[in-house]
Order: sequence, then structure tokens, then C-alpha cells
Amino acid sequence: MPQDLHALLGDLVIANRILAHEGVLDDFGHVAVRHPERPDRFFCSRSRSPELVTRDDLLEFDLDGTPTDPKGLKPYLETVLHARLFAARPDVKATVHHHAPAVLPFTVTDVPLRPVFHMAASLGGPVPVWDSRDEFGDTNMLVDTMAKADSHARALGGGTSVLLRNHGASNAAHSLPALVFIAVRMMQNAELQYRSMSLGTPRFLTEGEIRLTADMQMSERPLDRAWAYYRARAGYGGI
Amino acid sequence: MPQDLHALLGDLVIANRILAHEGVLDDFGHVAVRHPERPDRFFCSRSRSPELVTRDDLLEFDLDGTPTDPKGLKPYLETVLHARLFAARPDVKATVHHHAPAVLPFTVTDVPLRPVFHMAASLGGPVPVWDSRDEFGDTNMLVDTMAKADSHARALGGGTSVLLRNHGASNAAHSLPALVFIAVRMMQNAELQYRSMSLGTPRFLTEGEIRLTADMQMSERPLDRAWAYYRARAGYGGI
Amino acid sequence: MPQDLHALLGDLVIANRILAHEGVLDDFGHVAVRHPERPDRFFCSRSRSPELVTRDDLLEFDLDGTPTDPKGLKPYLETVLHARLFAARPDVKATVHHHAPAVLPFTVTDVPLRPVFHMAASLGGPVPVWDSRDEFGDTNMLVDTMAKADSHARALGGGTSVLLRNHGASNAAHSLPALVFIAVRMMQNAELQYRSMSLGTPRFLTEGEIRLTADMQMSERPLDRAWAYYRARAGYGGI
Amino acid sequence: MPQDLHALLGDLVIANRILAHEGVLDDFGHVAVRHPERPDRFFCSRSRSPELVTRDDLLEFDLDGTPTDPKGLKPYLETVLHARLFAARPDVKATVHHHAPAVLPFTVTDVPLRPVFHMAASLGGPVPVWDSRDEFGDTNMLVDTMAKADSHARALGGGTSVLLRNHGASNAAHSLPALVFIAVRMMQNAELQYRSMSLGTPRFLTEGEIRLTADMQMSERPLDRAWAYYRARAGYGGI
Repeated sequence: MPQDLHALLGDLVIANRILAHEGVLDDFGHVAVRHPERPDRFFCSRSRSPELVTRDDLLEFDLDGTPTDPKGLKPYLETVLHARLFAARPDVKATVHHHAPAVLPFTVTDVPLRPVFHMAASLGGPVPVWDSRDEFGDTNMLVDTMAKADSHARALGGGTSVLLRNHGASNAAHSLPALVFIAVRMMQNAELQYRSMSLGTPRFLTEGEIRLTADMQMSERPLDRAWAYYRARAGYGGI
Repeated sequence: MPQDLHALLGDLVIANRILAHEGVLDDFGHVAVRHPERPDRFFCSRSRSPELVTRDDLLEFDLDGTPTDPKGLKPYLETVLHARLFAARPDVKATVHHHAPAVLPFTVTDVPLRPVFHMAASLGGPVPVWDSRDEFGDTNMLVDTMAKADSHARALGGGTSVLLRNHGASNAAHSLPALVFIAVRMMQNAELQYRSMSLGTPRFLTEGEIRLTADMQMSERPLDRAWAYYRARAGYGGI
Repeated sequence: MPQDLHALLGDLVIANRILAHEGVLDDFGHVAVRHPERPDRFFCSRSRSPELVTRDDLLEFDLDGTPTDPKGLKPYLETVLHARLFAARPDVKATVHHHAPAVLPFTVTDVPLRPVFHMAASLGGPVPVWDSRDEFGDTNMLVDTMAKADSHARALGGGTSVLLRNHGASNAAHSLPALVFIAVRMMQNAELQYRSMSLGTPRFLTEGEIRLTADMQMSERPLDRAWAYYRARAGYGGI
Repeated sequence: MPQDLHALLGDLVIANRILAHEGVLDDFGHVAVRHPERPDRFFCSRSRSPELVTRDDLLEFDLDGTPTDPKGLKPYLETVLHARLFAARPDVKATVHHHAPAVLPFTVTDVPLRPVFHMAASLGGPVPVWDSRDEFGDTNMLVDTMAKADSHARALGGGTSVLLRNHGASNAAHSLPALVFIAVRMMQNAELQYRSMSLGTPRFLTEGEIRLTADMQMSERPLDRAWAYYRARAGYGGI
């Protein structure tokens, strides 16, 4: 295995552990990363809780969500969700689907989730909502078919984040550190917006502030600093 | 002791520790499992906090809540609650009674608890409420007699969950992993519904979504995955 | 030192640690216990955070709050608060003064704190509120004089609990295990009442339920069970 | 290095760890302390999360925010925020800038943050709010220039605390223990005020209570007690 692929798969395990440790993921939810050499392939764990994922659980998939070598392991039922995000968005290198508790109220009500503090600028404008009932009626609520996964990818559009009605959320980013940054901030922003709306009338970031702040935060120094912090907290030591 | 009984009692200890670790149970509350060979018997700890329960604390009871061999230990005052659930519901193999903090507001107000996210589909429709005052007037609030326990079992009916006014909740399931899944989701759903109602007007799962999602989640893959996660978090290692 | 006094002082250290571990106490707040042989004496730590208190920090005081042997250590500025509770209430053997975060909103608003679940029946009816401004005007907010401490003891009256406006709360009980039980339940009840009032219109326990439930819970089996649980969580092992 | 400087830098590391442990700081935010001999110099970590800061990360700066010896390390982008607070306030010896989650709703809405319990008297009256848009329009939200840092220092004025709109807060104090005390209490007060306003109509401390209580708490005994508690919790043992 090439050195950079080896390192990337190590980071995929760490990203699983970080997002479990920070409360974005619990027994369900999953993280994926695109193959660094073959853009039509990506990696994701077999069906296992992110907090328990190891290198041995990782499988390679094509963009239909089919494992290139199943190794006798069962994938997540929603692996295709990641496959169709990678298919729709060549710029995206890492994805996560989760049910972060603070985010869920924004999937249950029609209150739009929007950046209320600078750290969450990367959410962009109001986060779009995908409702499985619109195209598919009553379902088992999973994004477990090509049709549902393509519909879900269209809802994400060109952004970083999408909400799933009465279900959860997905994020997409250009790297695993950027993905962790965005998913954690989405959770924090949801908590803050919830509290701010209980307390009074929230002011949101302006469009200019969102653009300037997101550009700054998606750069090397903030992402390195955040990644070092989160990996240390998840038990992987400092840099 | 037969091998499957030995394993089941090990799982009963683990279920106690899991539900304590996840905050469903604290110093009070209790878990029970039906005897795999003798449907007129079940197992439950002596009067001890679930976080501290070991194999040596487990007692066998009949369906009146009488220990078949007390071993000089004091049972929980509410052991009969479990006895009468097992008597009323042959399909039920595992039960828990708890005071999960997030659930309690739905026992204090008349707001119905209903599934607001897919993970809690197994709660079914609005969860019924048992009010000890209806048949028994002012009491010490415990379900500590045959009459109260039978009344409580009637309130549960054919479902998985019942609320006790100003007191707590009980869950019933076809296995210990299913019981843990349902009790944890009840707690998460209560938190989510509380927050959603503060934030705006909640949308609930449709009846079709509840049925399709509950069927899927009560199957082997999701239950195995959740059980492995919760037992690891409670200190019992991965699978 | 007699054996029972030795054991009681050990329990006083454990009660300090328990109430810190459960979040009733933080860097401030204090616990006291009456001398088992000399009802005109009690024990309390020198000025030190409860989480750090050891046997070597304990001092003996008379009912004016004066140390019988200061050992060169500085007592808490509010030691007299405990002294005057012991003076006013011969039935009381253990006291705590704290700023439990969940309780504080009931000292800031005029919403009465009342039992909303069975575990908090020992709070009794609506908890009385002591306002330092009523008799003493603007102060440093401490109960640090005989006059203030006597006024505070009058507000407690014959009950287990009193609130201090914009400041905190005090509890009194017949033993350290009962004190821990009441202080933890006060905190849980405050959280539950807060949430229930956000969610809808709370139903409270009836007077009959309060009496019957408090009598049952202040008995040996529930108090032993809770004490074993809390001391294990605070690092002192099971019984 | 003189002994007192050596000890002060040790305390700066500990203050970083304490404020991370207590949840005032996460991956972002920073703490600074003035040089004990040279009032035109101060110390602050290189760009690193406070939970991970060690002695080797500390750099010395002048009051323009320029490192006197960069050692090849990258400073925080907002180091100048601290520089200009030290320049504007000769009485201030220690500063922190943070995004404590409980505080943030008061930067998002126009509800003034004010002391609602005695422990937060040192916040003073309603905490002033600095809005970067007033003088600088749309920005990347950072206090990363002399002009912005001077404006931010003017907003702090002669007090201990200032809020930054949709961003965070800064505190200033006469020592590191006082700084930790104030920052933790600001967070607790924000949580309490939020809850109190949800529950009913809050009563605030009077001006007389604020003055008398703050004077008492900023004295040796309370500050020593709190510092010993927080450093023990952050893993630095008792005193």
C-alpha cells in the first residue's frame, strides 16, 4: 500500500473516533473518504459503530456503493449515500452522515439552521433540508438506494451540509480535517441557535462575514490546530 | 447451569451496566429477563443499583414476584412490576423500569411522547400514561403490589413503552439488546421532542414510517451493532 | 477516638466527595455533621473545596461556629450557617450549603420549587426562600454572622430545605446518607420542574403522596441503596 | 530565568489547562499574562489549543503583539487582542479570549448579560458588547489588527469583561487565579441567566451587592480556594 494511502486510512479511523468522541456520532452514522489516486473509489467502514472502527473494518467501494472486495463483511445499509455524494461532487474528498442530537430539532421543525457564530461560517447560508417523503413517500427512513442517495446528493447541492427531515444530517468537505471541523461546528451552531432563539431574537452572520470567515477557517493553520486538538482528545496524542 | 442460561445472565448484568452508563438508570430502577426454558420464571437483581449489579446479585422469581430461592437477599420493592409484565405478555422476554431524566417531563405534563426521529420508531404511537391515582388514590408512588402491577401492565398493553405519572417509565422487548435499544431511544426521543417543541412546531413520523422503520431496526444487524457499541462503552470490550 | 466517631468522620469526607462528584458542590459550598456524643458540637472542613477535603481538614466547632481547636487552619467564612442550624434543630444531624446550578434559577425568579417526581418527596411543600435583603439590606451575600445565620435557620423552619435568593440552597437531614439523598434529589427536581414548565403545565405530587413517599424513602433500604451507589461513583467502592 | 517568572509561566500553562478543562476554551481561544518585571511585555502560547499548551509553546510579545523572539513558531492570529488590552490597562496582569458556549447566546441576541448570582459579582454591571461591524464592516470576525484590538480594548473599558457580537468574550484581571475565577463565573452566570429568563422574571444583584461581593471574592482566601480546586481538577494535584 502506498504511504499516503496508508496515512489516509489511518486518518479515516481517527476521524471516526473523533466524531464519536465529540458526540456527533453514536452507535449509528458513518464517515467516508475518497481514494487519493482513484477518484471513482472511496473507503468506509463495514457496519460498525464509529467509536469501535479499526483499520481492519475499512472496505473500498465504487461509486455505486458496491464493495470492490467485500472480505465477507457487511457494509452499512446507507453506504450508497456516500457513493452518490462522491459521484455528484468531484471537489469533495470526505463525507459524514450523522444524527447529532443538537442538530436534530432543525430536522423536526421548519426553523432554518443558519450560522450564528463565526466558527460555523462554513455551513454557508440556511442549510437545505432533504425530505424522503417528497419523492419516496413512507419509507424505512434510510438513504439505502441509488435513487434516494441521488436525491439526497441533489439536496446537498454545492454546499457543505444538508439536513434530513426527522432523521439527521450529512456533511461534505475537501479533507478529513475540514470535515471534522464542519461537522463539530454544525453541532455547536445548532445548540447556539436553539439557545439564542429561546433567549431573544438572534442576529446572524452577514453574507460577507460568512464568506470571509469561511475562507480564513478552511485554511491550513486553523484546520491543523483543530485537528491536533480533536485527535488528542480522542486519544491519539498531540502532534 | 446450561450454557445459554449462563450467557443470558451475563447479558442481564451487562444490560444493567449499559443502562446505568447511558443515564437511563441511576441509583434506582431495575432490569429483568425471562427464563429461557421456563416462561413462568424470570431473573432480576436483589435491591441494588444497576451500576453495581453482579451475577451474585441475581435472583429467580415466579410470576407473582416471589423469589424461588431468596438466598437471604432483599429484592427490589417493585419486583412485582416485572412479574406482571411477563405474566401479561408472553412475547416479552426483557423489561426495564426507570426514571430517565429526559423522559420525566412527559410524566409531569400532559404532552404526549411520540416518535420524532427514525431511531425511536419502536416507541410506536403516543406512549400511554399510567396514573397510580386513578385506581389507587394517594400512594407511596411505587408499583409494589399485584393489583398495581396488573394495572400498570394493562396500561402498557401490546406496546413497548408506558409512562408513569410523576414517576418514570417502563419498557418491554423481545430480547435484552432490543430492550436496551428501545430504552435509550425513548430517552433520546424525549430530549429531542422537548427541544423541538421549544424551537417550533414538530413534525412526527407518519404511521407508515413508524411501522417500516421499527421493523427494520428490530432486526439483527442494527441490534447487533447497537449492542456491541453500548457494551463496549460500559466497559465490556468490542465484539 | 471512639470507633463510631472515626467512622462518622470518614462518612463526612465521603459525603463531601459524593456531593462534589454529583455536581451539587463545586469549589464552594460545605457539609457538616453533628458530634454523635456531644450535641453541642459539630464537624466541618477548614476552608477547602469539598472535592479535595480529607480527614486532616476536619475541625470541631461549637454552636456559635467557633472552632474548639483551630489547629492553625482557616474555617469557611460561612461555618456559622451550619452552627445555627444545629442549634435551632435538635433533630438535624447533617447539613449542607451549596450552589447547585439546577437549583439556582429558583433563587433568581419567584417560581416556587415543589416536588414534581416521587424521588424528591422529601423536599416537602414549596421550598421556603431566605432573602438576605429583607433584614440586612445590601451585603456581601454570605451567611457569615450569627444574626444572618439565625435568620437563615428560621427560614428553614422544620423542613429539609431552604433557598437563598440569588445565591444557593441549604439542606438538613437526620443522617449523612439522608442528606446526600435530599440534596441530589433537590437538584434533580429543580431540573425536572424547569423542563416541565417549559414543556407544559406541570402536575405536582399531592400532599398525601409527598408524606407517604417521603416516609418510605427516608427508611433504611432506599437510603442504604443510594449511599452505596453514590459512594461507589465517588471512588469509594461498593459495599 | 528568575524564580518568580518561572513560576508565573507554569501558572500560565495551568491556566490554559484549567480553562480548557472547565469548558471555557476548546480548540480555539487563548490566555496571556503580563511580564512581572517588564510591564511592556507579555506571554502567550504559539497557535495551539489551550488544552495542549506546554512551557515550550510560550512566546514573549511586546505591546504591539510582535514576538520578541519568534523561535520559528506561529503565534495566534489574535495575539494583538491581548497586546492592546495590556497597553490600555496597566492594572491588568492576565487576559483571556474565549467562545464559552453558555456565553455565546448573549453575543447573538441583544439581551444584556448581568450578575444573577453572588459568585459572578465580578462581572460588574451589564457586560458591554463590541460589534466589529460598527467600525470595520464585514470582516473575517477576528481581532487581528491593531485597529480592531484598540477598538475592542475601548469596549472593555475599566471592567473585567466584554462580549464580541456573534463571536465570543474576553476577560481581564489582576492575576491568573482572578482571571480563571471571573471567566468560569461568566460562563456559569450566562447559563443561570438563560435558565432564569426561561423560567420567569429574574432578579439581579443590586449595585451594592455587586460591589461588596466582588470585593470579598477578589481577596486571597476565595481565590486561593478556587485556584486549588480548578488546578486539581485539571490534573495538577492539590496544594
